[in-house]
Amino acid sequence: MEYKAVKGTRDFLPLQMQKRNYIFDTITSVYKSHGFLQIETPAMENLSTLMGKYGEEGDKLLFKILDSGMFLRSEKFSSFEQEINQSRINKAASMICEKGLRYDLTVPFARFVVNHQNDIVFPFKRYQIQPVWRADKPQKGRYREFYQCDADIIGSNSLMNEVELLEIISEVFNRLRLNVTIKLNNRKILAAIASIIGHEDKITEITVAIDKLDKIGLNGVEQELSQDGFTNDDIASLRPILQIKGSNEEKISTLKTFVSTNEQGVKGLEELQYVLDKCKTVGIDNVEFDITLARGLNYYTGAIVEVKADDVAMGSITGGGRYDNLTGIFGLKDVSGVGISFGADRIYDCLEELDLFPEDIKTATNVLFINFGEKESEKCLELAKNLRSANISCEVYPDSSKMQKQMKYANNRNIPFVCLLGENEISNNTIVIKNMLSGEQTTINQHELCQYFK
Amino acid sequence: MEYKAVKGTRDFLPLQMQKRNYIFDTITSVYKSHGFLQIETPAMENLSTLMGKYGEEGDKLLFKILDSGMFLRSEKFSSFEQEINQSRINKAASMICEKGLRYDLTVPFARFVVNHQNDIVFPFKRYQIQPVWRADKPQKGRYREFYQCDADIIGSNSLMNEVELLEIISEVFNRLRLNVTIKLNNRKILAAIASIIGHEDKITEITVAIDKLDKIGLNGVEQELSQDGFTNDDIASLRPILQIKGSNEEKISTLKTFVSTNEQGVKGLEELQYVLDKCKTVGIDNVEFDITLARGLNYYTGAIVEVKADDVAMGSITGGGRYDNLTGIFGLKDVSGVGISFGADRIYDCLEELDLFPEDIKTATNVLFINFGEKESEKCLELAKNLRSANISCEVYPDSSKMQKQMKYANNRNIPFVCLLGENEISNNTIVIKNMLSGEQTTINQHELCQYFK
Repeated sequence: MEYKAVKGTRDFLPLQMQKRNYIFDTITSVYKSHGFLQIETPAMENLSTLMGKYGEEGDKLLFKILDSGMFLRSEKFSSFEQEINQSRINKAASMICEKGLRYDLTVPFARFVVNHQNDIVFPFKRYQIQPVWRADKPQKGRYREFYQCDADIIGSNSLMNEVELLEIISEVFNRLRLNVTIKLNNRKILAAIASIIGHEDKITEITVAIDKLDKIGLNGVEQELSQDGFTNDDIASLRPILQIKGSNEEKISTLKTFVSTNEQGVKGLEELQYVLDKCKTVGIDNVEFDITLARGLNYYTGAIVEVKADDVAMGSITGGGRYDNLTGIFGLKDVSGVGISFGADRIYDCLEELDLFPEDIKTATNVLFINFGEKESEKCLELAKNLRSANISCEVYPDSSKMQKQMKYANNRNIPFVCLLGENEISNNTIVIKNMLSGEQTTINQHELCQYFK
Repeated sequence: MEYKAVKGTRDFLPLQMQKRNYIFDTITSVYKSHGFLQIETPAMENLSTLMGKYGEEGDKLLFKILDSGMFLRSEKFSSFEQEINQSRINKAASMICEKGLRYDLTVPFARFVVNHQNDIVFPFKRYQIQPVWRADKPQKGRYREFYQCDADIIGSNSLMNEVELLEIISEVFNRLRLNVTIKLNNRKILAAIASIIGHEDKITEITVAIDKLDKIGLNGVEQELSQDGFTNDDIASLRPILQIKGSNEEKISTLKTFVSTNEQGVKGLEELQYVLDKCKTVGIDNVEFDITLARGLNYYTGAIVEVKADDVAMGSITGGGRYDNLTGIFGLKDVSGVGISFGADRIYDCLEELDLFPEDIKTATNVLFINFGEKESEKCLELAKNLRSANISCEVYPDSSKMQKQMKYANNRNIPFVCLLGENEISNNTIVIKNMLSGEQTTINQHELCQYFK
């Protein structure tokens, strides 16, 4: 019998952890510099909290946890039995399961806000970095357990919040030294376009078609629209949008004419312009107005944002937008907000592919003391203690094994310095330091040790 | 319908998170200073990995996750139905569940070591801070989801490892400013005592009885032993142990006589002496040899350690010991090690009760810029950006609400400084800083802002 991690889930080895922590720490420190507060919710939620929040597919993909203890009381079980056929599988599962695993951070956050509304200071800026689970078929790049890194500002309609989140996005990728383009759109503009050509219900079809412009050209897109049931007149009136190009200013100018008669459209453009202007103020120059951006269309009501890496082919690595009524499903009305979510796994892959992880990430221990025996290692314990209080991580090799074995350990662990302290060194209070990269050896006084590594 | 967190699980509010992070960060930084490497394993494990590892009770307390998708294929289901009665409930659950939630960090770590044995450098010093789940009846202080903070050194039998873990324990509680006593024992000594009085099988009864000395006195303990089936002769020969007291040295001296004929006992005392001596070398003076300490008796084979807070009544807040054959159950022989685990929840309660959390833990944001309107807040955005690059966390209030409302926000969020920048300040490049604690106001030049807060 072979014991492995569950399919679609991952063990993280030390080096992977160090790289992941580099990403999480960067995101966290930027969130904190903007005064965001961290919260955590439990891995499990009651199924009543989770079911119906992610659509039919979501209900299927929820990991459901078997009721413990008395869960199979006979009356419960017999009705369970009656429900048992594929079409009613979720209902049947609900009968023997009360709890499920967190599917995203948003629904538990909404429940959190409702439960703790009297303990929260609004506007509430929260960040949350926790794993989520989906009972999906595991594939390359698709996991059953993965982390989300969310930040939201709720309880304020000010567009300053959109600007702050774009600042955060920009700062995170600056610090990670990853070149990105931030794509920005506004749901109100999309709604206006659909309304103007008389198909308010077909926003999705329109944006999906526009999105293919690069690949299949203007003719291709027009053919597709025609197949989707748009008339030639519809398509003709859409043409200015299909041919939109140029700088942000040029696109906005084209759209101003197009939506001039539509109140919602004018509002959407104003919002967009405001956010773009403020981005300039704070020196963010990689925001691109992208009319084809339509993520989370059923959800977002204002700004929509998505981030793409410039130098590596990869889907969206961060996304977000403004939404109304976050907590309505749990009985608290009129809590709107705006949020973003960093895709840690994809960011990891980008940094890996572009070799952007800092070199020193491999070094967990700075100094290894070679163990020459009882008396020598006792001295090393003291010196190690001093180094640690000077914030220099170090280890004393636990066994007086052969020198070669100990040096190999230092090598395999990427420890840059090795300290040698034998009988001679004890008697004259010195210590030999070997630089593992250059091979150079230096002898210094023991009391200079901390100074040496500072 | 009310939506709440699952019973026995907790939401963590910002202030709780900050306090918990203070504990986790302290533990992490000490682990790191000793060169421990972090790993993570998934929340879910296959039930085959988990079942049978924690005893019958543990099997019941495992959260089991319903198979997704095709889990209720008819042939599977009909055999499930046959198994369904209370006595075979775990077997029945195994039929519709393949996965379960992590119950502790040790079993998944053992599986991890077996799976990744070729990617690990031995001796492997790993730390792991993750939640675990138990389907227990929730009670005060007992949760269904809680964090464990483990460190283990595996692949080395050296007692230097025991010393290193005691150094870590000592340093963590020093940094947390919590007075503790570290209790130390050795399984070999307990085994020797039981063997000497001819009851190798009754170590537990002996230690449980000895443990009650303080409460029920020598006579009480002897009565209890007699009820447990020990003869008067047994009890007489145990008396030197029952009456053991004094300093570590005095206790060791008493025991030396008692176990002198027992090889294992002599070995255990030697180990104990070695660890105590080395603790002195590195300045740890709060280790107490406690013969009644018998935690994890089925598991530990050498050192046993437990930590108690001195100034607050609370169970063990940290524990650990040496074990043989960690990975044997997963097919890899002869991997022994020594480990510790900090009890984060209890440590939290101790710090709370003794008011030992640092005062500044409540401050997430250092500076709030009051929003006086469009033009003023635009200037604030720039200044805020400068502060953040100087590593000073700050926020611009997102709406130009009434002054009072914004000041109240600063108060409720424990923000120590508020910056006011109105029309006047813009025209003469100044800014007013209000100290929220003292009420004092200062006017400075805008370009002095970063300097002011440094």
